[in-house]
Order: sequence, then structure tokens, then C-alpha cells
Amino acid sequence: MSSMQFNLLAQDGAARRGRLIFARGTVETPAFMPVGTYGTVKAMTPEDLEVIQAHQGLHRFMHWRRPILTDSGGFQVWSLAEMRKITEEGAHFRSPVDGAAVFLSPEESMRIQRVLGSDVAMSFDECTPYPATEEQARTSMELSMRWASRGFREYYSSEPPGTLFGIVQGGVYAGLRLESLAALEQIGFAGLAIGGLAVGETQAEREQVLEQLMPRMPDYKPRYLMGVGRPEDIVEAVRRGIDMFDCVMPTRHARNAHLFTRQGVINIRNAAHNQDTAPIEEGCGCYTCLNYSRSYLRHLDKCGEILGSHLNTVHNLFFYQRLMREIRAAIAAGTFESYAGEFYALRA
Amino acid sequence: MSSMQFNLLAQDGAARRGRLIFARGTVETPAFMPVGTYGTVKAMTPEDLEVIQAHQGLHRFMHWRRPILTDSGGFQVWSLAEMRKITEEGAHFRSPVDGAAVFLSPEESMRIQRVLGSDVAMSFDECTPYPATEEQARTSMELSMRWASRGFREYYSSEPPGTLFGIVQGGVYAGLRLESLAALEQIGFAGLAIGGLAVGETQAEREQVLEQLMPRMPDYKPRYLMGVGRPEDIVEAVRRGIDMFDCVMPTRHARNAHLFTRQGVINIRNAAHNQDTAPIEEGCGCYTCLNYSRSYLRHLDKCGEILGSHLNTVHNLFFYQRLMREIRAAIAAGTFESYAGEFYALRA
Repeated sequence: MSSMQFNLLAQDGAARRGRLIFARGTVETPAFMPVGTYGTVKAMTPEDLEVIQAHQGLHRFMHWRRPILTDSGGFQVWSLAEMRKITEEGAHFRSPVDGAAVFLSPEESMRIQRVLGSDVAMSFDECTPYPATEEQARTSMELSMRWASRGFREYYSSEPPGTLFGIVQGGVYAGLRLESLAALEQIGFAGLAIGGLAVGETQAEREQVLEQLMPRMPDYKPRYLMGVGRPEDIVEAVRRGIDMFDCVMPTRHARNAHLFTRQGVINIRNAAHNQDTAPIEEGCGCYTCLNYSRSYLRHLDKCGEILGSHLNTVHNLFFYQRLMREIRAAIAAGTFESYAGEFYALRA
Repeated sequence: MSSMQFNLLAQDGAARRGRLIFARGTVETPAFMPVGTYGTVKAMTPEDLEVIQAHQGLHRFMHWRRPILTDSGGFQVWSLAEMRKITEEGAHFRSPVDGAAVFLSPEESMRIQRVLGSDVAMSFDECTPYPATEEQARTSMELSMRWASRGFREYYSSEPPGTLFGIVQGGVYAGLRLESLAALEQIGFAGLAIGGLAVGETQAEREQVLEQLMPRMPDYKPRYLMGVGRPEDIVEAVRRGIDMFDCVMPTRHARNAHLFTRQGVINIRNAAHNQDTAPIEEGCGCYTCLNYSRSYLRHLDKCGEILGSHLNTVHNLFFYQRLMREIRAAIAAGTFESYAGEFYALRA
């Protein structure tokens, strides 16, 4: 049923080196996936969907030939806070674009993601808020599991354009997380995501969830930690066995003049960079570092020139991709722990 | 004294096909020069200048290896309107960036352009306002000629990094324009610009100035019409013998969703493009037209995505460069008039 293959190539402790194989190309894991917000349901009207359908899917519309993962809209609905109402059937909310009343069900989310033609589609779920009592977290998780089942039936009702992932919920409660995992395994998803984290919980709570959940996830399925995160969050999650990540941080930080280096984040707006003819990071091989100085990037930012956002984004995405490349090489070589040690030493 | 050569390769009526040869590369004329506003004096503080000096000039600062032409700041001071005061010595004004009092003289403008390391520097002049009486236009032009002489002396006081152009002023008065030209020829500039046009005068007034001035300009020097303009303005000016153009129009229009086609300008915000899977212009070879549809560009614009500005700018600059390439080929082939005829027929 699935058009995706996952091969586990090496393990180093709990850290995994793998490969996701799609018709449109191969993704080496651990992998970081840059986020393109305006491809999501959040800013989409039914009219937009027609346009994308006329292009035979998102790939041709946005001129991207390699694999695309789309979110279901569940998290996006959740982020609307007061503007939404959840029922057994689905989510009622007001469009943040034009204020129109919208109803999104698991079935409708799957129909949309099928039209988009994504290589990986995500289950439509309710993101459990933080904090939540165990009772609240259970009610929310159980609803998400019923939605996951309805979505799975819809997505695979005819030849699908890609693969549907299930999303583990259950808040910070390890028992609920394990129940959620069992429910998704029962349905039969080919890939598993961990949702409802990075929503306000402490780092200790997050790591505890991962530590109890990871050993129970099947080895042969890819594991995707949604919405995480900072470079140090990625290192910690890889250490616990995560394969896939996404986060707006490198692109959003770039537009706000925050640039990643091995030593930590620098703010290019800082007056200290005013006369600095050095690149963002010595030794970095990205187009921006090879050709432009910190003082030029500061000048572009000061003038509000969009070239600045572009060059900053090139650097930050390169930084994340280099980090993932290094992590993959370290796992393959069985040296992940010493790599992580160097990673933290440089930031100290 | 000049590090620039100008070769006249062909003529077709008054239209000229030429070549400007600089140490940094060759520019085929008629040529259109895209404008980079934030490289100009307008947004520059003395501090910025030090940064550029630390980069050994503008080329390394902005990572541009080919020829650069810089304006003197004269037009930029003029555009400040009420915020400026002109004396024999120079221009006093308030910085639009931080409100600080600034004094810019012909000598200071030359020192700045020398630090920038531009391949072509422009004389510091006063732009004659429109409308102006003949008396006002004469007073202003004569001041500009004294400034041109002072600037020339300063620019060539030691080995210059490029070539200084003089700027013909005189408003819409042909007699004053010819006097100004004679004064610049007396000083000995290697290139000649026509300033103070596109400031509110009628098209008939502008064409009359060009028609009376052009036959009197020496054949062997490049002629630069400053700040012009629309594709049809360029065709008309080439017909009268202009070699060089600059204008913010292709880049500014792109950011405002106005896109050039052979049939005329389209506004990509228009709802008509909502479902349109066609490129901006059928047959256009630019990166944007080869890969993206009108509906995708409309979507990016609607979402405020900066990728939209980028893709629109790629197309508009490509359009201008293709126009100039076609104009040059037509002059070389002796078919400029029939090219101009087709140009207008497509727009009708």
C-alpha cells in the first residue's frame, strides 16, 4: 500500500542512520526538513486548492521535484486558539485569511493532501494543549486516534499519491503515549510521528516522553519528531532514535537576522558586526559565507533589503543541512557520542 | 587619464551600436543598467563608507565583479526637496536616515565615489527643477558647470579608479543645453550624461531637447540618459542616439507585482490570473517563466512571500536585458526602424 521504503543502515546506541526512498528521490536520515508555511492548509482557500489541482499537485505548482511532506492542518487549527471549536466530527474554525467559517474533518484533510500530491501526508489530529490533566490528555488522544483511523480509511480508499504517517499524542503522560502508539500500530501506519511536543512543556518532560516512547517504536518505521527544533534539541533527539525533523527556526531566524554558527547564534544587527569583513562563520562553505561579509549582511538588514533575508536563509539552511550530514556520518562511523561532545564543547 | 574605452560598432539612422570596455568587463550598448539604491550616497553614512573602504571598494562589499556606475548624490539631494539648501560651495541637507546635518560638495562626492571604486563616477550637479524659467534654468546650469569643473579636478587629482562622466543640464531650453554641453566638452569628460529629464516635463519637451542636443554630441563618447525609463522611452531615446540607460522601474515594478510583457504591463495581483497555469509571457526564457505559473506568482504575492519579489524581479530584469539585446542586434543589422515598428505593433 505504501510508496515509501525505509532502510535502517546503521545504529550507534539508540541513534539511527537510515534512508527513506520515494519515487521522487531519496532522503538520508536523520533528516531536517525546511518548512514552507504558505503551502499549508492555514493560508489555503478552496480556490487555491483548485489552482494546485490545475497544476496536478504541489510539486509542479511550486517547482519542487523532490519529496514533499505536508501537515494535516491539525496543529494549524490548534494554533488558532480561541477561534476554533472541536467536535467528534472535526474542527470548526474561522479562516485567519478572510474570516470565513471553515470545517475541517479527517476525511477532508486527507482529500486535500491527496490533491496536493504530497509524498508524505500527516494524520489529522487534535494537538493536546499544555498543561493538561491526564484526563484531558486522554480524551484528546482518544479523539485523535479515532480521527487517525477515519483518515487512514479515506487516504487509502483508492491509489494514494504517497504515504500517510500516524501521530502519537498523549501529552507528557508516558502511559497515554504508549496507548496512542499501540492504536496507531493497530491501524497500520508506515511511518510514525510524535506530535504535541514543543508546545510549552519543560525540556525534562519532553526528554522523558522520548525516552519511554522510543524503545517501544518499531525499528523498521521512520520516526518523525514534529516541530523540533534548535540544533541542540536535534542532537538530543537523534541520540534517542529520531529520524526526521522539521522546524521554522532556520528560516524564521534568518529573516530576523539571527544566524547559526558552531559557537552559537549571532545577531547580525549587533553593532559589533558593523566593521567586520569576516563571513558569518569562518570555514563555512555556504554561498553567503563564501562571498559576503558580516558587515555587508548587517548593512542589508539595516536597509531592509530583501537580499539580506535571502542570504541569511541560505546560510541558516546550509548550517542545518551540514549539521544533519555530520550527524549521519558520525552515526555511520559509530562516533556519535564523541561528535555530540565536540558539538557542545564548541558552544561552551 | 581614462580607464574606459568606447568603440562605435554600427549606426542605423541616429541609433548607435557600441561597446564600453572597462578593466572589469565589457558593456554592449545600447545598455540598460539595473539600479541598486542602497549602494548610493542617499542611505550612506560616513561609517558605511569606512566599511566599504575596509572591503577595498563597493565591488568586494557587494560581491559584484563587473562594472559599476555610481551616481554623485546630486539628484538624491534634489529629491529631498524642502530639506536641502544649495550654496556656491555645495549642498546642505538633513540625512533622511537619521536626520543629521550633512554637507556634500563636488569634491566630497568625488572622494566618496573614489572610495567606492566605481568604474564610472558621475559629476555632482544641481538638478534643475521643472518648471523653471529660462533665467532659473541658466543660473542652475551654470552652477552645475562650475561644480563639474571642481569635481573633475578632484577626481583626476591622482590615479582614479574609473572614469568621470559630465552631466548636461539646462532644463527644457535647447540653447542652455548646448551651452552646458560646450562647457563639459571644454572640461574634457570622457563620457556625457543628460540629466534633469524625467522630472515632470512633457514627452514632447523631452524629445525636443534630445533632438536638438544629440546631433551636437561627439560621436566617439558614450551618451547616458539618466533615469529613463519605460521600454517605449528607451526605444525612442535609442532612435535619437542614446547609448546608456538606468531606471528603477523593472525592479520597483516587480516588487509591486507589475510585470513586463511584449504586449504591455500586467498586474499579477489581478484576479484574472488566479487560475492561470501559463507563464508571465509565453516564449520568455527567464527562470521564472520557465518554471512558474502566473497563478503561483499571484499566490506568492497574496501571501507576502519574498520569493514572489525575487521571481518577479528576475523576469522584469530579463525582459529589459532581452529588449536591449534585440535593440543592439537590430541596429547592427540596420533594421532598427522595422524592429521599433514591431515593438509598437505588439503593444497595440
